[in-house]
Amino acid sequence: MTDVRNLADSLAKIPGPWQPHRLATVNDQVDMKIAKLHGEFVWHMHPETDELFLVIDGEVVIQLRDRDVVLGAGDLFVVPQGVEHCPRAEHEASVIMIERTGTVNTGDAGGELTADLRELD
Amino acid sequence: MTDVRNLADSLAKIPGPWQPHRLATVNDQVDMKIAKLHGEFVWHMHPETDELFLVIDGEVVIQLRDRDVVLGAGDLFVVPQGVEHCPRAEHEASVIMIERTGTVNTGDAGGELTADLRELD
Repeated sequence: MTDVRNLADSLAKIPGPWQPHRLATVNDQVDMKIAKLHGEFVWHMHPETDELFLVIDGEVVIQLRDRDVVLGAGDLFVVPQGVEHCPRAEHEASVIMIERTGTVNTGDAGGELTADLRELD
Repeated sequence: MTDVRNLADSLAKIPGPWQPHRLATVNDQVDMKIAKLHGEFVWHMHPETDELFLVIDGEVVIQLRDRDVVLGAGDLFVVPQGVEHCPRAEHEASVIMIERTGTVNTGDAGGELTADLRELD
C-alpha cells in the first residue's frame, strides 16, 4: 500500500529545477510527477504520450509553436501527444505532471537536461 | 487542443458533493476529475483501477477496512485497485481524483450516490 504524500513536503526534497520526482503511479499506466521549473527548458515533444501540467505555485509558460499558454497556480493544461512544446518559468515555479509511465522528460530532443525520474524517498 | 482549466473556477461550477466532473483525460487511459465531498460516501471498491486522491481544500478521511487515512490540503493518496474504501468529509472539502477512464464513482457498490461523470462546460 502506498502512503500519504504531501506536495509541499515533496517540493522541499527537490534540490533544483528540471528534476522530475515521482509522486505516484496509477495502474502502471501513468505517473504523477512533481518538479520545480526555473528558466527555459528545451523544445521537444512526446511521440507516445499526452502531458498534463498542473501548476502548484508560480507562473509557467508552456510555449507552443503557435502560441504561449500562460498558467498560474491552480491552472492545468494538457499538451497532446506529438505536439512540440517548451516550458519556461521566469521565476521558480512548481508543477505536477501526469504522463505515460516511462516517459523521458526531454522527449525526442534529448540533451543535457535529460533526467531520470527520481524517487522522493 | 484542450484549453486551460482552473481548479477554483471549476469548483465554482459544481453545485454539490459527490458529483465528479472531468478536468482532463490523459491518453484515453485515465481521467482527472474534480469533486466536492461532504458527509460520508458509500463503501465500495474499483475492481479495475487504482484511485488517486489529491486534496485541494479541507480535510478528507479515506476510510479503509483496517485504518483511516486522514488527508489535508496538498496531501495525496492512492487507493489500490480492489481495495474497499469509503471517503468521508465532516466539512465540505474538494479533491482531484485520477483513475482509469470509464470508472464509475460507486464502483462495485452502486446505489443512489452513483453519478455519471459530468463535463464542466
